[in-house]
Amino acid sequence: MSATVDKRRVTAAALVIGDEILSGRTQDVNLSAIAKYLALHGVDLVEARVVADDRADIVAAVNALRSRYDYVVTTGGIGPTHDDITADCVAEAFGVALVEDPQIVAEMTVRYGGEEPNAARRRMARIPEGGSKVKNPVSGPPGFQIGNVFVLAGVPRVAQGMLEDIGWRLKGGAVVLSRTVRVVGVPEGMIAAPLEQVARAHPDLSLGSYPFYGPAGFGANLVVRGRDAAAVEAAVGVLVETLAAAGIAAVRQEEG
Amino acid sequence: MSATVDKRRVTAAALVIGDEILSGRTQDVNLSAIAKYLALHGVDLVEARVVADDRADIVAAVNALRSRYDYVVTTGGIGPTHDDITADCVAEAFGVALVEDPQIVAEMTVRYGGEEPNAARRRMARIPEGGSKVKNPVSGPPGFQIGNVFVLAGVPRVAQGMLEDIGWRLKGGAVVLSRTVRVVGVPEGMIAAPLEQVARAHPDLSLGSYPFYGPAGFGANLVVRGRDAAAVEAAVGVLVETLAAAGIAAVRQEEG
Repeated sequence: MSATVDKRRVTAAALVIGDEILSGRTQDVNLSAIAKYLALHGVDLVEARVVADDRADIVAAVNALRSRYDYVVTTGGIGPTHDDITADCVAEAFGVALVEDPQIVAEMTVRYGGEEPNAARRRMARIPEGGSKVKNPVSGPPGFQIGNVFVLAGVPRVAQGMLEDIGWRLKGGAVVLSRTVRVVGVPEGMIAAPLEQVARAHPDLSLGSYPFYGPAGFGANLVVRGRDAAAVEAAVGVLVETLAAAGIAAVRQEEG
Repeated sequence: MSATVDKRRVTAAALVIGDEILSGRTQDVNLSAIAKYLALHGVDLVEARVVADDRADIVAAVNALRSRYDYVVTTGGIGPTHDDITADCVAEAFGVALVEDPQIVAEMTVRYGGEEPNAARRRMARIPEGGSKVKNPVSGPPGFQIGNVFVLAGVPRVAQGMLEDIGWRLKGGAVVLSRTVRVVGVPEGMIAAPLEQVARAHPDLSLGSYPFYGPAGFGANLVVRGRDAAAVEAAVGVLVETLAAAGIAAVRQEEG
């Protein structure tokens, strides 16, 4: 439902780069961090892709996503080793050269106690022509922005640090508000009809049902999302009443 | 590096469906479970996409991925509520009807103590024409397979249960073996040159570096992957020796 056309909607895609995610070796956590960060800035994450450390795949994905969405955020593949090819691929996607930035080299030299960075580390000093740096408050070498594409590290702590330097560059839309109503002990199959009734009566809002099962019981979180705070609040009220009329108790959750 | 052309390679894509993943509300864990399960069956997960509960986006992704890879595994969007549209979209992608399966309805009736399922639950009894059921050992209603596409639930426990019923349907290639060598207290920038030297000498294998930072220290896990066990073992030996020659101690990790 989130893809409802909305002229106030600003969109983004995430591109997670790395064999280690696709082999199942590493659990990606950057996607949800990016989603939450963008949402705070009024940008909807509409699609995400995960690709391997493969040149053709990365170039194709960058070009597909940057033409389709307002912004693209990539993570991974900007370290010093031979399998870190994201900068090369983004430069290729934009058809520009990848150029060593003397200031990054100078900062590295300071960082390594006056020793010039070796060839491997110098790979991390390269920025596509026309790009600008994205600060890395954690481990030194920056990410970069070129056009509508932001290129961040893959290590979650570093990726999250770099995210803080992209917010001011985003021209976001209206922020999406989200409210949750929790139903415990009632199967989703019983909730579906009243939920759909409320969803149909509120075409400008997104209503979703997210079931849970666990040792503490089962049920569903019903989420109402939209850009108009009053409309979201009103729909939550209608939803609770409609469920009550169907004999289903729903509890509003406090939001952060 | 994993996209090296290999005639013994059988490929797959994962398609994670759901607004809740893209809003950052829910942390996806199905992707890594799918990756590991497919790897055990000799199938490489080569790409993953996450799309919203949006009809056009789901249909487009299913068609893009099923034509490109040997298999596609989807998760999410097969519950009873109005936002569960995956079955509809997969049927549309294949250009076939979505048909209620009387056996699923009968099983539901037994499950609900003899009561016929309501309209919402009957949504979960629909299978695209020509499809076959994928057993759900956890919560009842099945997933399904049509062509090279497997459609699983989104709730992780259910998705993982359903995965167990797809292995026998996969025509896998040679299983990829993975061995890890761990370097502690040495920055990746110092590891890069010896690692690349070994990678260049072993073009049939994939060598990757996955840095870590944490309270216990920093370093990198160097992963050697390939289909030929003897070649992987030999390369691990060469890697440890090459690192040692550069003054870097590396410890082989036990693999599960």
